[in-house]
Parts: sequence; C-alpha cells; structure tokens
Amino acid sequence: MTTTEKSAGGRIPRDAENDYTREAADARREFVREHTGAELEHVSSYSFDPAEGAGNIEHFVGVAQVPLGIAGPLLVNGEHAQGEFYVPMATAEGTLVASYNRGMKLVREAGGVKTTVMDDAMQRAPSFVFESAREAREFGEWLTAHFEEIKEAGETSTKSGKLRNIEQYSASRILYTRFNWTTGDAAGQNLTGKATAVACSWITSNFPGDIKHFFLESNFATDKKSSQVNMLRTRGKRVVAECTLSNDLVQKHMRTTTDVMFRARQVSNLGGFMSGVNNNGAHSANGITAMFIATGQDAANVAESSAAFVFAELLPNGDYYYSVTIPSLIVATYGGGTGLPTQREALEMLGCFGSGKVRKLAEIVAATVLAGELSLGSAIVAEEWVQAHDLLGRNRY
Amino acid sequence: MTTTEKSAGGRIPRDAENDYTREAADARREFVREHTGAELEHVSSYSFDPAEGAGNIEHFVGVAQVPLGIAGPLLVNGEHAQGEFYVPMATAEGTLVASYNRGMKLVREAGGVKTTVMDDAMQRAPSFVFESAREAREFGEWLTAHFEEIKEAGETSTKSGKLRNIEQYSASRILYTRFNWTTGDAAGQNLTGKATAVACSWITSNFPGDIKHFFLESNFATDKKSSQVNMLRTRGKRVVAECTLSNDLVQKHMRTTTDVMFRARQVSNLGGFMSGVNNNGAHSANGITAMFIATGQDAANVAESSAAFVFAELLPNGDYYYSVTIPSLIVATYGGGTGLPTQREALEMLGCFGSGKVRKLAEIVAATVLAGELSLGSAIVAEEWVQAHDLLGRNRY
Amino acid sequence: MTTTEKSAGGRIPRDAENDYTREAADARREFVREHTGAELEHVSSYSFDPAEGAGNIEHFVGVAQVPLGIAGPLLVNGEHAQGEFYVPMATAEGTLVASYNRGMKLVREAGGVKTTVMDDAMQRAPSFVFESAREAREFGEWLTAHFEEIKEAGETSTKSGKLRNIEQYSASRILYTRFNWTTGDAAGQNLTGKATAVACSWITSNFPGDIKHFFLESNFATDKKSSQVNMLRTRGKRVVAECTLSNDLVQKHMRTTTDVMFRARQVSNLGGFMSGVNNNGAHSANGITAMFIATGQDAANVAESSAAFVFAELLPNGDYYYSVTIPSLIVATYGGGTGLPTQREALEMLGCFGSGKVRKLAEIVAATVLAGELSLGSAIVAEEWVQAHDLLGRNRY
Amino acid sequence: MTTTEKSAGGRIPRDAENDYTREAADARREFVREHTGAELEHVSSYSFDPAEGAGNIEHFVGVAQVPLGIAGPLLVNGEHAQGEFYVPMATAEGTLVASYNRGMKLVREAGGVKTTVMDDAMQRAPSFVFESAREAREFGEWLTAHFEEIKEAGETSTKSGKLRNIEQYSASRILYTRFNWTTGDAAGQNLTGKATAVACSWITSNFPGDIKHFFLESNFATDKKSSQVNMLRTRGKRVVAECTLSNDLVQKHMRTTTDVMFRARQVSNLGGFMSGVNNNGAHSANGITAMFIATGQDAANVAESSAAFVFAELLPNGDYYYSVTIPSLIVATYGGGTGLPTQREALEMLGCFGSGKVRKLAEIVAATVLAGELSLGSAIVAEEWVQAHDLLGRNRY
Repeated sequence: MTTTEKSAGGRIPRDAENDYTREAADARREFVREHTGAELEHVSSYSFDPAEGAGNIEHFVGVAQVPLGIAGPLLVNGEHAQGEFYVPMATAEGTLVASYNRGMKLVREAGGVKTTVMDDAMQRAPSFVFESAREAREFGEWLTAHFEEIKEAGETSTKSGKLRNIEQYSASRILYTRFNWTTGDAAGQNLTGKATAVACSWITSNFPGDIKHFFLESNFATDKKSSQVNMLRTRGKRVVAECTLSNDLVQKHMRTTTDVMFRARQVSNLGGFMSGVNNNGAHSANGITAMFIATGQDAANVAESSAAFVFAELLPNGDYYYSVTIPSLIVATYGGGTGLPTQREALEMLGCFGSGKVRKLAEIVAATVLAGELSLGSAIVAEEWVQAHDLLGRNRY
Repeated sequence: MTTTEKSAGGRIPRDAENDYTREAADARREFVREHTGAELEHVSSYSFDPAEGAGNIEHFVGVAQVPLGIAGPLLVNGEHAQGEFYVPMATAEGTLVASYNRGMKLVREAGGVKTTVMDDAMQRAPSFVFESAREAREFGEWLTAHFEEIKEAGETSTKSGKLRNIEQYSASRILYTRFNWTTGDAAGQNLTGKATAVACSWITSNFPGDIKHFFLESNFATDKKSSQVNMLRTRGKRVVAECTLSNDLVQKHMRTTTDVMFRARQVSNLGGFMSGVNNNGAHSANGITAMFIATGQDAANVAESSAAFVFAELLPNGDYYYSVTIPSLIVATYGGGTGLPTQREALEMLGCFGSGKVRKLAEIVAATVLAGELSLGSAIVAEEWVQAHDLLGRNRY
Repeated sequence: MTTTEKSAGGRIPRDAENDYTREAADARREFVREHTGAELEHVSSYSFDPAEGAGNIEHFVGVAQVPLGIAGPLLVNGEHAQGEFYVPMATAEGTLVASYNRGMKLVREAGGVKTTVMDDAMQRAPSFVFESAREAREFGEWLTAHFEEIKEAGETSTKSGKLRNIEQYSASRILYTRFNWTTGDAAGQNLTGKATAVACSWITSNFPGDIKHFFLESNFATDKKSSQVNMLRTRGKRVVAECTLSNDLVQKHMRTTTDVMFRARQVSNLGGFMSGVNNNGAHSANGITAMFIATGQDAANVAESSAAFVFAELLPNGDYYYSVTIPSLIVATYGGGTGLPTQREALEMLGCFGSGKVRKLAEIVAATVLAGELSLGSAIVAEEWVQAHDLLGRNRY
Repeated sequence: MTTTEKSAGGRIPRDAENDYTREAADARREFVREHTGAELEHVSSYSFDPAEGAGNIEHFVGVAQVPLGIAGPLLVNGEHAQGEFYVPMATAEGTLVASYNRGMKLVREAGGVKTTVMDDAMQRAPSFVFESAREAREFGEWLTAHFEEIKEAGETSTKSGKLRNIEQYSASRILYTRFNWTTGDAAGQNLTGKATAVACSWITSNFPGDIKHFFLESNFATDKKSSQVNMLRTRGKRVVAECTLSNDLVQKHMRTTTDVMFRARQVSNLGGFMSGVNNNGAHSANGITAMFIATGQDAANVAESSAAFVFAELLPNGDYYYSVTIPSLIVATYGGGTGLPTQREALEMLGCFGSGKVRKLAEIVAATVLAGELSLGSAIVAEEWVQAHDLLGRNRY
C-alpha cells in the first residue's frame, strides 16, 4: 500500500454546483485512492441518495457501516414510553448488546423500569466583560429586570425555542450567564446558539452601560464536555430510571445476591468520589453511545450524556432498589442525523420518529442504561465479567 | 404505523448454530417489522458478510450508515505520523467536517501540527477490602514487595500486554489499585481486564493475610467515564498537539486577531475552572467522535477521550502558541471494530491499519483536534459561529 | 512528665450551677494536671471573665494565645470600606504578616484595592426522599408554588433572617434543596439552621403527598467544606477585589516584571485546573485565617472561605490587571466569637464592630487577600520566596 | 469611636534593633489607638515574653485570646496514640466542645477509635516549561534517571527531610512535578520549599537541555488549598479512624438507630457527589480547627486538612462500621506555633510535645474527628441539631 503521507497534498475535490451527488462522492473516493492508496469499497456502499446527507456532512465520500444489533424486550413504565421496546444498538464492542439484553430480561421480570423526565433545558452561555466587578453586578441586575424583553427578542428567531430563564455566575469583572431554553423535539444546540445570539444582540444594543467584551461561549454551557454545572443544573434532559429487584430474581439471573451487589456499590461509590469521576455507575456510555449512533443522535454528546448518578438501597426484606439519574442527556427526534435513512428506521423501531417524541426517547435511553448497569454491575460481582468478554469478544491479542 | 409498544413482547430470534448469517439477520428484521412496524430497509443494506461481525455485535440485524466525509490535508509533524493526511470523519452534524477542514488549512499554512505521545497506559482497577485500614496498609506493602511475581502471573494471559506498575489509593479499610498496562496496538480494556483478573487470582492465592472482599472494578479506572484521576494519571494515550500561528495568518483566514483569541481564551479558562468542566477547550469531542466512528474505535470512550487541557500563549511578537493535551485518549489499530470493512478502509486512508500504528493514529487524532479547536475558537470570536451553522446545518426548527 | 494515657480516665469536672467561672476553669485545670501532667500556666492566663465565654465554649479552661500582628495601611476603595485600614492578623507563621504588609504597600502605591460584594446568601440544605422520582418532581413543583408560605413560616423564627429563594437539585427519588437566606450581620449558620427547620416543619405538615424521609442536611450546603456548588452559587459573601499595577511599580517593589508574573499565572492556572484545586491563586487561606482568628470569625469556615478564583490580564501597555473572587466568604460582625474581648478590639481596629458592618469586613478581607496574592505571587517569581522564609521563619529543622 | 479610615495613613512603628519587646509592641498599640481609636487592652494582655514570638509573627502587638475547652476522655487504639486523651479545643463556637465530647463518650463505650497513619508526604511542586512537549518528555525521563543525584543535592539543605520520590504530570510543553518529602516532626512546608529549591538548583545546572522557565510552585502541591490531587496522593498525613457501634449503644446515647444513620449517610453521600464537595462527612473542619489553634498548628491548613472520605457499613447484625479518612492532614509537633507557650501546654496535655510525636498527634486528631462526625451525624438524624445550638449557642439574632 502506498503510504498516506507520500503522495498527499492535493486539495479535496468539491463540486461547487451540487456537492451532494454520487459523482461528487466518487470523485473524492478516487482522490483518496490516488493520494492514500486506500480503496473505499465498503465506505461507498450506501443505500441512499447523497442528497439526503446535505446538512449533515461535508466532503461526503460514503458511510461508516456500524453493526447494529437489537436488545429487548425492554419493559418501560414511563410517562411517555409505556410498554415493551426493542432497542437498536450500533456498536462494534462484542458482548455489549448481549449484556444489555441480559439486563433487560432481568428488569422485565422485576416489573419493568419506571422512568421520569425531571427537567429539560438546553443552553448557550455567553459571557460579558466589564470595566470592573461593579459594572458586572449592575449588568446582572439589569439582565434580571429586562428578562421579558430579552426573551421576546431571542424568541423571534425560533419557532419552537422558549427561553426559560437566565442564570448568572460572576467572577472578577466577568458575568457568565446560562440562557436556558426548551427546544421541542430538537436537541437544540443550534437553535439555542442562534436565539441566544439574537437575544445578546438586543442586550448589547439596549444595555445603557459599557460592555467591554462579549463572547457567545466561555465554558459555561460546556457543550460536548462534562461539567459539574451541567450535572447540577441539567443540560438537555434530566432523566431518572428506577427499578426494584428481589433477591430471588438476582440469584436466579445474576448468580449473585442483592447484599453483595449493594456492598460492591458502596465500595464503588467511595472509589468514584475519590477518583473524581463524573459517573458513579458502571458504563452508561456504552448503551447511550450505541443508541445514539443507531438513532442519529450526535454521538459527540456522549461526553456530557455519559455523566450519571447511581443511587441504590438495600431494603430490609433484601430487595434492591436501584436508580440511575442522567443529568445531561442530549437527545432529539428531529434535526441532526435523526432523519437519515437507517437512523430514521431505528427511531421508528422505538416509535420515536416524528413530533412530540423526544421525552419518550429520553425515557427509553434511561431505561436501557439502567438495564445495562444492573447487568454489568452484577457481572463484576459474579466474576463472570472477564469470561463474558472472552467468550463473545475477540480477545486474541 | 403500528405503535411499538402494543405488539411487543416476543423473544428476539437467534440461531443457535450460527447467528452471524444474512438469514439470521433477516429473521430478526422480520421480527422487528412484526413487533414494531418498522421496515429496516436501509439498516439491512450492508456490504459485508455478517460473519465479519462475529465478536463485534450480538443480535445483528444490519448496520447504521453514518455519513462519512473527509477533511484535509492535515500536516502533522509527529514522531509516528509525518506528512499530510486526509482524515475520515463519520458524523451527521452539518458544518463539522467543514470546520475541521478550515482549521487544517490554517495549521498547514502555519507549518503543521507538532504531536507528541507523552504516556501510554491502560488499566483495570481492582479494590480490596480488609478487616481494618491497618491490614489494607499491610497489603499495600506486600503488593509493592511482590510486584515482579504479580507481573509475571498477569502477563501469562496475554501476548502483548505488559504490566508497568500498580498504583495504590487508600481510603477506609479499602485499598484501591490501578494496574497500568501497555497493550500494543489494542485499546486494551479486555486484555487488561483479563490479565488483571489473572494477576488478582495469584494475589488472592498468595497473600498470607485475609482479604475480606475483592472487586475487579470500583471506579478507579473509570472506563467510559471522565475522571480527574485519568486526567492526572493518563488512560490510553496522553498526547499533546502544538502549533504556533502568526497574527497575519489568523487575520487572513480567521477574520480575527491573535490578541482577541487570547483574550477569549482567558475568559474561557476561568469559565471552565468555575463550571467544573473536564476540558477547557472548545469541542474536541466532535473531531474525536467522528474519527472514532469512522475508524472503528469504541465511541463510548468519547466519555473519557473528550477530556482536554488547552494551553495558549500570546508571544511578544503577536504570534499565538496553542496546544491541546488529551490525557486519556483511547485508540486502537487492532481489535474492537478496527477490522470491520468500512472502518479498516478508513484506517488505511490514514496509513494506520496493521501492527505498530497505534501511536501514529493517536497523533493524527490529536492534530485533528487541534485544528478543530482553532477553527471553532476563532469562529466564536469572529461571531461567525451561529451563521456557519445556519448556512450548512439544517436549522429549520 | 507523666504520660497522658496512663492516668487518664476520669470525667471532666463541670459545675452544674454555673460552669463559666474561674473556679470551674481552675478545677478543670487541676484535673488536666492530675491526669496528663500538663501545667496549663499560660492557658489559664486570660484577661476576661469566663462568663464572657458562655455561648462560645464548653469545658472552658482558659485560652489559646495566638500572636497578633498588624499589617497596613491597606487602601480600600470599596462600597462599604473606604480609606486606609490596619489589619489585625493572628498567626504563628513567620513572614505571613510581613508578606501581606509588603503587598499592602504595593497596592497602596497602585491606588488601592477596589472591592465589590457581588452576592450574599447563607443556606441550610434539607433533602427529601420519596417513593419514586415522580413524587420528588411533584414535591419540587409544590415547593415552588408555596414559596411565599414557606418563607413566612420560616421567618417567624428569626428577626434578621430573610428567605431569598429555594434552589432544587434532583437525583434518584431525592430532592435536594438549598434554602438561601440573608442573615444581617451574623454569619448565619445557626439562624439559618433554625429557620429552615421551622420552614421544613411547615412543609412536612402541609405537603399533601408522602415524604418518606427528611434530613436537614445532606451535603448540599457544605458548611465548613469546600464544594463546587458553593463556588458556583455563593455561600456567605461573594466578594471581588481588583487592582491594576504598572510594570514600573512591580519592578520597583517586587523585583520582577508584569509579563513574568503573567506568564507564571498562566502556568499556575493550568496546574490548578489539572490538579483539581478549589483556588487557582496562591494562599488566600493565610490572610483569611489570620483575620478570622483575630476578629472572632469561625476559623473552621476557612474550609470554604479559602476557595478563590484569580483572574489577571496583561494589558497592552504592560499594566497588570489582577483580581481575586472569593465565592464563599463566611464573615460576621455579630454573634459567634465577634463579641469576645480581643476579637472585639480587632474588629474595632477596622471600624467593623457593631451593626451594619459585615459587608465592610468582607471587603477588607478581600482586599487583604489580594494584597497577599500579589506579594506571594511575585515572590515566587522573583525566587525570593524560600529566602524570605529563611530569614524570618524558624527554619532550624 | 474615631472611624478607622479618617486618621489612618502612617507607617507602622518598628524597632530596627529588636522588634520583639513589650516596648515595640506597646508603640504599635499606641499607634493603633491613635489611628483607629481602638484600645487594645485585651490584645496586649499576654503572658509571655514577646521574644518568644520571633519567627512566628511580625509587627507583634499582642495576642488573640481564643477560648479553650477540653473534651474527653477520648479512647484511642492507635499505633502511636494508645489510651485515653483529653483533647484541647480552641474555638468560639458554642456547642462544638460539647458535641465532640458527646461523640467521645459514645466511641469510648464502643471500645475506642482505631487509628492508622497510611501515608506521609509533604511536597513542593515546581513546574518546568520547555520549547515543546517533546523536550518536556525528555526532561521527565532525565529526571527519573537522575533521581538519586537530585535527592542527594536536595537533602544537603535539611537535617530531617528525605526526598521520597518525584511525581510527574504533563500538559502542553510543561512538566509539573511533585517532590514528595518526609519531614520528621515538622509540618515541613518551609523545609520542603527550601530543599526543593536546592534540588532544582542542581537540576537547572545539570540538565543538558534548555529549560525555558521554571517556577517553584504552580498549583500542584496546593498548599492551603483543597485539591483532588492531594486527596488522591496525600499531603501531610493520610490517616484513617475507624469504629464499630452497636445499635443498642446508638439508641441509648444518640436517640436514633444505626439503620437510620446509615440511610442518612447514603443520601448524604449522593448529595456530596453531586455538589462536588471535598468531604462527604459532616464537619471535620470544626474539630481540626479547634485542635489546630489550641496546639499551634497552622490553621490556614484547615483548607486542605478538612478534606475527608467517610465510609460506613451497616452490618447484618445491625452494628454500624464507621470510618473517616483524612487524606491531607497537616500537623506538626515541632516548628511553627508548636513551641509557643499556650500551644506547647496543649501539646503536653496530649503527650505530644517533643520529638517523635507527630504521628501520635495525627492519630488523636483523626480519632477526634471521628467522634465529632458520629455526634453531629446522629444529631442531624435525631433532629436535635437545631435545638442543641439554641440551648448552648448565642442565638439571639
């Protein structure tokens, strides 16, 4: 194979008229072959018209084909998701689907997973710099006093976005804000970015004082990054999934007992507190990522969506109450990759395509996460964990 | 469309003989259609033999087709990656590829990105519980004294894994450890899990004292979770990417100046410190996720791989030194999804398929991240940001 | 000397009638001598009537005499503190007063320290546990709807306390709250504790649903502990101190330059971000603790009061803008130890004894902290640091 | 009273010959009276020769008299502290001594507190800046290779300090280090600062490469600040205190039960994880500060010494295992304020004055903290908390 580096250097071909065609993609495929020696045979095997990708990708050459398996039935007792679901999971990690499937079987026998969307807010977080802290404080007071006008200004730029409130955090001569929006079925980062910019335009035009500098983002919304502020104050959906397992059930399915699981959890909680982790559970990122890729979510949001709070109780009768709280779950049933062909099919599998479905999807994700936590959590305890990977995964290093 | 919930309830079909066939996949596709009403037409359009997915997926029904674009040329001055690269990025987020492409153009004109792999360690982190803290301390001393034997025992289970050292963290009557391994071209979580379990088997058999409980994981390796301990002590590869931009270059390409970019960075650094973010940069998760999906990495590792430290300096001559440190980048060129058809092609595009390539890949990822940081970082400052999303993205909410 | 352990075992004497007398103190002194062999000669040399200590101490035997020095004049341009102050500092750390004094000289020549109290809130943080997350959410809505009644109920128990708002943070089936109070000149922990308990009494009596458990504190006010939530949301006073230094001034007094100080700050900021510190400055705890002990503050509150955000800018003309934000400064000019004899004198030195003075004190503390930051910050850079300790401190190990 | 501000402005008097005399102190006292109107009658009532304060204070005017009470007997089953102790506590917070005393009674009936010093390290943390990350990595390797010479060089400056190891943390082109020393009976910050500076002198003279900048501190030792790195890696002493209580004992003394205490702890653990606290216990800072002031420790170190990990288990028989781990307890029995008159007496009370006593003191502090945790922890549960403050404290706001 020609090494990549040697023959590189040319400009990637682009069709100025219409770049979303098979021809344009093929031209780039040929370009890649010439410059890197790589044949993109499978990458260029896609089943849809590249025009479908307009708005989703640039310099399109084809697709990554990510294996998609299904797990279920998952019994959800939500407010928006009710009944049994088969969950599409796109991953290349052996045992992942099997492990979630095992957990779903367990929670189904336990009566299903109760899910609740606690809160919903998407934000953009502009910062404002002043002459001194005193002006920053005055600006903050002005912001509070003019909230209704700011809201009105910002909302002119969006049909579905509603400004809920503006949080303020001060340090030095800077006021950091969080503009919290609800965004309908969209994840809403773009909507929120645009509407906040419009609102800030009104602010900078109308504030009688002197704003020295203004930045649309300064690490206080932490899009695609994990942060304490988002874990505290919610980004996207804040969802709780809960389940209670009897000891009999755990012994039957998981080859361990509820008191052993609870003890492991205590040790794990302390470990996580000390290690400074953003998730005291086991592996919520696995289920979330597999569902995100399958259903056209932005998988980069796994960065913040993978934060979680696990809370469990061992009840006097030996039952095990188990819950997962996902404080910053970014999901959409509209926009982004949700309308792409395979992604849409995956959403349809869940009855989550179309309007008014985003909380249903959030609940199914949370229930899936809980099933996976119980499955891996018990496997670690039962020492089956390594073996499970050995049997199903490709451990031939 | 039949709602998902109503007709669900059946057991997912599985071929006990050989489940990795088109027939088995089709049986499940039919099952999904019956139970959920969803036609998996596109999902079942894959270009490879399902047998290729054995070890990567269970209950295989097809694939998620994720749009794949290319960005470049990216000029890398690494120790392992040298020259120009075209970077495969799988994403559905409009403007992402364009934004990285813009950054790559900038850094190429600036002479390229210097990359350095600073450290390399994959871990499994067992915890051991004792009668009291005193026995935990004794065990820790014993562990140190018997390191060579433990290493020998653990390494029997793996060809490529080498145990570097065992870190100890104590609290209460528990000793948390981190077994740090190098794992060749594999990401190494499975290898490390197995080898650490084997090492622990030797430990529990040979330690003369009384270990009350032992857990293979207790939130101190924080796989697929972000943690301070991994940001401090490295998980996977610790990579630095660096670049110096002249003010002229920034004005020409980015419509802003280096001193404005630097000021924005200062405000952003403080914002991130206060918000408790795990990444004081802009959006490394975007580039990392797109490359991870394209090249068969485990995208769930975006949870920890998205942590980053950005450090910039405004030099007396107006030049802008900029660097990104990724402290826990989990990459592989062997194992997991790297051998799947489209994923292998994407690795080949980078000259990263085959043995001895993992640090090269790590360097290209880091250089890509840096290009994207400069691109978005300057766009925020130039207030072009929202507009960019508007023109290319699907903002029709 | 008789070893402590051997003869111990008796019950500490206590006068049931009136325990705050010299006689009662002497009885305990004699008891200590008998049981431990220690003569409390100096401890029992106090200049006030033990009756003054009623409400401040139990089992009184005397006093710790902590050396008290003065630093100044400190020029403060606050809203509440205006003019020059001599700052009482109680400490046993050699060089501490000298270092603050040096910083005060510097900032005075620079025109003084501008101080601003940004926010003011003291909290108690009860948690409420429910059957499931759904009831927790309902409770949260009920809490919002009944805020005025809750406020009225809570405020019956206090003259000066006013309930500002109740923050809500949910996880699992638990609702954590923060009851934010203003508390006049008192630090307010006790007032807040009592008034929140009274408010909760009203809540538990009036909420129509079923609260399974209720705890008055669950680590969300983090009294005497440092936390991200308090650094974000304020506990006690949030105060900013600011100053701008010319390069000439820094060279003259500090034997370094503003650009070297700024570079050191950048490296230090990254260090702090990576190490997970709660204060990216140098040593605010030194000044705060010394003033707290001198003026009768609760020195245990150094735990949270020592958190700080430093933000500096190197201006185009070489000037150095420097600021410190103290997000959770717990101070009082009434209650606690503020009325004790030496402590009252120290407050009088600052013109801070009596009602309506607490913000003035907060400003002086913040200005003092800033002076100390500049002093140590520049000393580190000028490499004088170790030497300074050598000359004045007792380094004869 | 003359307001402070009006007449201020003069230079604080200082006797160039010998500033540690009653005359020099009185001159300053008079100066304070003139400039602020405050009479320092009680401040100037001290029982020792000011010459004793040389090395501890500058601009000495007198003392802060902090009320000192005693609690006990505290039964400690340590390796260094064995038997019953009466603990000196200097504080102005009503109920504090009473609360600790109550906890000591409880743990004594439970058989005492088992204490273990797990680790011991004091550090200075220089940072080194290079041309690029690659040179930083090379320097790191050189540092490892030359450890013995660096150790030898550094140790020439100290009798008692021993360099244990040098930790490395890299980001960008900077290498942050932690020089870990043992420091005998001293807290060791000064010793460590000097010896590390001497070691760095050797390093900068002998490293063949080019160190661009070098700073003796960059927020990686976090003296007098709380940080994750110190909680993970120890600063000062890492001490564990443990105790097991029967349910009968808890009911008898604490008016609650072990299962209620355990439930409260679970809720509190989750609260602390979410709030980002550095201590999931109740109020260790109270006991630590009171002992620090009494025994001449540097109370500014409460900032980091107040970090704690609480871990509890409810055993099958209803017993309650409870432990506190203090990961960064800074204590000394030599140097600093330990030799001052009242402070020395307080150390003598504990049999901790003189050489070889520092671990004994660390154990007593940890045992005291545990007693206080159980006392307040159970009081919160028993809802006696607010009332306790009411009866003993000065709640007359």
